Amino acid sequence: MDKQEIQRQIMQAVETVRATNPMAGSITNSVTVNFVANAQLAVGGSAAMVYLPDEGEFLAAAGGAVYVNAGTLLPVHAETLPRTAKACAAQGTPWVLDPVAIGIGALRTQILEAFKVYPPAIIRGNASEIIALSGLWGLEATAANNTRGVDSTDTVDAARAAAIRLARFTGGAVAVSGVRDLVTDGELVALSEGGSHFMEKITGSGCSLGGVAAVYATCASPFIAALTATNVYNLAGRRAEAKTSAPGSFQVQFIDELYLAEAREIAENPFTVEKAE
Amino acid sequence: MDKQEIQRQIMQAVETVRATNPMAGSITNSVTVNFVANAQLAVGGSAAMVYLPDEGEFLAAAGGAVYVNAGTLLPVHAETLPRTAKACAAQGTPWVLDPVAIGIGALRTQILEAFKVYPPAIIRGNASEIIALSGLWGLEATAANNTRGVDSTDTVDAARAAAIRLARFTGGAVAVSGVRDLVTDGELVALSEGGSHFMEKITGSGCSLGGVAAVYATCASPFIAALTATNVYNLAGRRAEAKTSAPGSFQVQFIDELYLAEAREIAENPFTVEKAE
Amino acid sequence: MDKQEIQRQIMQAVETVRATNPMAGSITNSVTVNFVANAQLAVGGSAAMVYLPDEGEFLAAAGGAVYVNAGTLLPVHAETLPRTAKACAAQGTPWVLDPVAIGIGALRTQILEAFKVYPPAIIRGNASEIIALSGLWGLEATAANNTRGVDSTDTVDAARAAAIRLARFTGGAVAVSGVRDLVTDGELVALSEGGSHFMEKITGSGCSLGGVAAVYATCASPFIAALTATNVYNLAGRRAEAKTSAPGSFQVQFIDELYLAEAREIAENPFTVEKAE
Repeated sequence: MDKQEIQRQIMQAVETVRATNPMAGSITNSVTVNFVANAQLAVGGSAAMVYLPDEGEFLAAAGGAVYVNAGTLLPVHAETLPRTAKACAAQGTPWVLDPVAIGIGALRTQILEAFKVYPPAIIRGNASEIIALSGLWGLEATAANNTRGVDSTDTVDAARAAAIRLARFTGGAVAVSGVRDLVTDGELVALSEGGSHFMEKITGSGCSLGGVAAVYATCASPFIAALTATNVYNLAGRRAEAKTSAPGSFQVQFIDELYLAEAREIAENPFTVEKAE
Repeated sequence: MDKQEIQRQIMQAVETVRATNPMAGSITNSVTVNFVANAQLAVGGSAAMVYLPDEGEFLAAAGGAVYVNAGTLLPVHAETLPRTAKACAAQGTPWVLDPVAIGIGALRTQILEAFKVYPPAIIRGNASEIIALSGLWGLEATAANNTRGVDSTDTVDAARAAAIRLARFTGGAVAVSGVRDLVTDGELVALSEGGSHFMEKITGSGCSLGGVAAVYATCASPFIAALTATNVYNLAGRRAEAKTSAPGSFQVQFIDELYLAEAREIAENPFTVEKAE
Repeated sequence: MDKQEIQRQIMQAVETVRATNPMAGSITNSVTVNFVANAQLAVGGSAAMVYLPDEGEFLAAAGGAVYVNAGTLLPVHAETLPRTAKACAAQGTPWVLDPVAIGIGALRTQILEAFKVYPPAIIRGNASEIIALSGLWGLEATAANNTRGVDSTDTVDAARAAAIRLARFTGGAVAVSGVRDLVTDGELVALSEGGSHFMEKITGSGCSLGGVAAVYATCASPFIAALTATNVYNLAGRRAEAKTSAPGSFQVQFIDELYLAEAREIAENPFTVEKAE
């Protein structure tokens, strides 16, 4: 698949979502759940958020894809998250995992470890989270990194090998957020540019990217879905930064730009493609 | 009650709320809870959100009205929601129900079914939800519709008979959101116009309308409260759309317009009144 | 400590936070959790929100300070909040308490009462909440006030004695929100001016002030941290009001002003200092 074909598929994903308004349900944290839903709606998808086990299974059966974000866990997640992952596997529904704050707390570790059996189609995280998940799943030669919270202490380059290993293990795609974002399916590595320094000054730019990737995963391959989401975020972030000077108005403008971005513009956001070594 | 009298009562509701800042507590979903509270504050009310059973009972005793939204259920809702509905009945406190996502999950069905014994003063939903609730409560000749998630697959016209039946059963009012919104108390049917296509592109326009209806229900009849909320939403939506071109800035402007709308303007938002057949 | 020295320490707190991006984790309500996080990021801090007991303990160990807001309690808080307070005491981590809605519900009373054993470094509330907490902890000659919900029915002046008693008991600081905000460490009383009437028209201005105080508490004394947060809120509120005319755009502009405020401007926001009698 060359860059031109990738761009063609990105355009197709964007247009299909806008035309069909597909539902991608979410089990996600309470901090940024509103941003996730509004970002999903802005790109043309439909959102539904749940907590209960049988409602997670409903999402797996009824939605075109599911988004799972491990932030702000409650006791009920101990049952809901594994059952949802299992139901996605049974139904063939692609799901997106954001292993946010991996390394904090016993339940989070237990849940994230168990996902190895029913792996997601797309994994999205910052560099430290991707390295830590690869370690937790035993895909690294050395022991797992620890993350200090929700912020990355590693660079995207440092997570490249872990991302490729994870993608090869799941057979899906991995997206690593950073100054330059990396998306890989284990064979190709795309590096997408853009975004804004304000994206670290608003909570949920990563979470909502995961939710948007789930929207595109309803109608595109994991690699294309993850790259489309990454490209539209980089485009909208760059445009929003050009029009604002502080994070409050940046976030409002960012949602606007997600909505206004055209398929061709998203496909043409600067990115490179190379072989995964 | 003719249209002029209805408009007089709408103006009175708007002005009483602004003068007295009444509290309408809520048990509502985590996705749009912030929007619900800010919309309630914008029209002049006061907000308080809870999850625990005895705190729901507190709302029923201390607030002028209560808003219950069945989205994003947690295990604790199994106890909190029935006890709150019962306490509202015991205290004579009007409450507003949004049966969002009816049909998803066993607990939601169980809770919504049980509400039939302590019915709300106002039911607000999209067409599919209203038809489904009427079916769940056994008010329909035919079996209940199923909804696919949080979006309506039926038109407001299709839900007219179900809305009238529900209103007659509860002795309160029912509001159905759609291109043209319907509000009925089982005797009259008001059809209110306005709004914006952007209201489907932001999450929570329906949820927050329910919260605002609860604010007005602290000092007006269910029919007037539901129609006042519907009218101010249609007015604010139309005005916000005229000033913005994408959903992020639309939502900000929409809250502004809720705050800025004058009583007379709300009463004069285009609507018709006819007999319920 | 004279006013000049206080201003020097305020500037230092602001600049240290912007230079070091310290994490202040939170256990806070679902209504305003997004606003809390975005306000913490806007002033230069880092945010992480949790619900589970061992994750609260993680925050106490890993973060420079912790913010605890008693709103929207869930059953899990019965275990998480006491364990987090105890862990903060064990680790010497300062924490900020917002006793929001004190007096509502049995669990809230039980949790807030138990905090007396592991007291917070900073208590932030409206006048009614401060009076009620002082009463609950047995620091008042007369019985505890009751609050009717989340809004204050008392003035800041009426809460002055209770605030001083609480500060002397904890050895930390107390901040009381009102038309003129009071901050005391039991020896000094600072009265800070500014803000906006719109701050009562958006949900979470108090909650997020507590979260921002926790950010400053990572690198300043409780008194300086509470006063720095109060000053930046009064400055940003006044500036945001001058540029907007309704609460939706006010909130966006307010976050912008938090981000844009300079250290010297925050230190020079009008405030007076006097001896606590």
